[in-house]
Amino acid sequence: MNRSAAKILDCTIRDGGLVNNWDFSADFVKALYKGLSEAGVEYMEIGYKNSAKLLKGAEAGPWRYLDEAFLREVIPHKSATKLSALVDIGRVDENDILPREESVLDLIRVACYVRDVGKGLELVNTFHDKGYETSINIMALSHVLEHELEEALAKIAESPVDIVYVVDSYGSMDPRDYGLMVDKFRELLPNKQLGIHAHNNLQLAFANTITGIDHGAVFADASVFGMGRAAGNCNTELLISHLGSTRYELRPVLQVIEEHMIDIRRKWEWGYNIPYMVSGVFDEHPRMAMALRASENRDRYLEFYDTLTNPEAIVAKKGD
Amino acid sequence: MNRSAAKILDCTIRDGGLVNNWDFSADFVKALYKGLSEAGVEYMEIGYKNSAKLLKGAEAGPWRYLDEAFLREVIPHKSATKLSALVDIGRVDENDILPREESVLDLIRVACYVRDVGKGLELVNTFHDKGYETSINIMALSHVLEHELEEALAKIAESPVDIVYVVDSYGSMDPRDYGLMVDKFRELLPNKQLGIHAHNNLQLAFANTITGIDHGAVFADASVFGMGRAAGNCNTELLISHLGSTRYELRPVLQVIEEHMIDIRRKWEWGYNIPYMVSGVFDEHPRMAMALRASENRDRYLEFYDTLTNPEAIVAKKGD
Repeated sequence: MNRSAAKILDCTIRDGGLVNNWDFSADFVKALYKGLSEAGVEYMEIGYKNSAKLLKGAEAGPWRYLDEAFLREVIPHKSATKLSALVDIGRVDENDILPREESVLDLIRVACYVRDVGKGLELVNTFHDKGYETSINIMALSHVLEHELEEALAKIAESPVDIVYVVDSYGSMDPRDYGLMVDKFRELLPNKQLGIHAHNNLQLAFANTITGIDHGAVFADASVFGMGRAAGNCNTELLISHLGSTRYELRPVLQVIEEHMIDIRRKWEWGYNIPYMVSGVFDEHPRMAMALRASENRDRYLEFYDTLTNPEAIVAKKGD
Repeated sequence: MNRSAAKILDCTIRDGGLVNNWDFSADFVKALYKGLSEAGVEYMEIGYKNSAKLLKGAEAGPWRYLDEAFLREVIPHKSATKLSALVDIGRVDENDILPREESVLDLIRVACYVRDVGKGLELVNTFHDKGYETSINIMALSHVLEHELEEALAKIAESPVDIVYVVDSYGSMDPRDYGLMVDKFRELLPNKQLGIHAHNNLQLAFANTITGIDHGAVFADASVFGMGRAAGNCNTELLISHLGSTRYELRPVLQVIEEHMIDIRRKWEWGYNIPYMVSGVFDEHPRMAMALRASENRDRYLEFYDTLTNPEAIVAKKGD
């Protein structure tokens, strides 16, 4: 049991931005940083540090293409809560990244699939050399063969990366799966800190996160009111309550929810529903379920289920 | 791991009735029974078998005061899915209960607090003598002292009851708590089947249920789309998916959700929200949170939190 060592990384802005296309006001981001700081949350991920010039048709507000000057306006005075940003392979221009001593950011996280771990570690090296804390977040672990994973972890073990994340991108894993996965990472990466990023398709994001912590993970991703793509993430308010009032304060997070998240939730959808649950059950990327929820067929669960279980029947039907 | 031995008891009508004051049409109950039968769910709890004459001002539809003649109209042909009813101590007239061979019901469950286990077992004896399968559901286990529980379980061990339920009434327990509690029940009740009834205040109802099963519980309560008092129950659709397609079919339950539950959910509220989460964190009965949600202050979380953490301040404020 490692609850006292755990650290919370709140990714409301970054993962929640995938819900509302980063439609967050600077005032909201300030209020969130204040709330998380008062709550004692260790890290806040304030967006993506991808480079707009590398993404076609990219126009999604400042949180997707963090700019240091803008960040300094939003967070002129940092608390003990550190700031992190996520980058994707192939979407970041290293020249956009200042040395850490000139940056508002503390931690840069690299998200990649197992096949791209080599490229991911190149980025890690660059950011590490610039002085940042670094993580590598291996996505879609439920779709990875054991030998692929072991080879990737062997490379990671030799890199300077500080934190290695277990990411259940499709929300298909249960606590037993998570426990075994964290045990494997711990065995193959004895000198790295481990992290967990869970999705709530099966209402297991919180349970998986505390299981991961109990198995030795240190970094736990969470988002306020669970805001995150599709079924969302482990809820920051639940994790704070679980890890205890000697370390964290729940009230400032409830204040953010009362004053901001209820309105945001009225405008945007995330969280448990049947199409996301079905995606989780079948260990699929949620993109089809997200498209369904954005269409007029949003509650046609059986048709969606049939598409996933028997695609031929659907093709035949279309051809009628 | 005991997944292959587990049995699902769907309590949508009984526990869900606490949400909508049993405003279920006979057609919906028929559709639910059909769906659960096709899904392979072993038991459906179709309501309370309390006696209207023992409850003051009681007027809450047939599902709260099940009548055999009415039940036969609703379920004229039983499938392999058995029917159960719940009774509360002091609210049931034993003379209302037919012998099992004349009844549509198979299982009668007795809900009681630990202090009432003696009375609960008297009812169990009566129903057992009438030929029913029986359970005793010990509520509010998170508020019970160890020696009280041990004394109660010793009495239960000597009774003819078939199933003994671990009930986390306040939704405050986590998977570790559940594992330890089921282990204790198993140790003290080696000859009884165990059951689990979890609430979703902390988004742990499903995780706690599968933990209970992994620790040896056989009966798992669930409700379709999680419909149940306050934060609701473990979702039947999640449990079916978890226990596997060789035993259960998910599609018929999704059909019930698509055709019925979405409309019901639009009219009535249940499931995770902040007041129920705060109740769970503080291990409190959800009645205050339910009253808040039914009032115009439904989203005033901070005031609610302050009431629970610092009641004196609220009194002082009122006296201003």
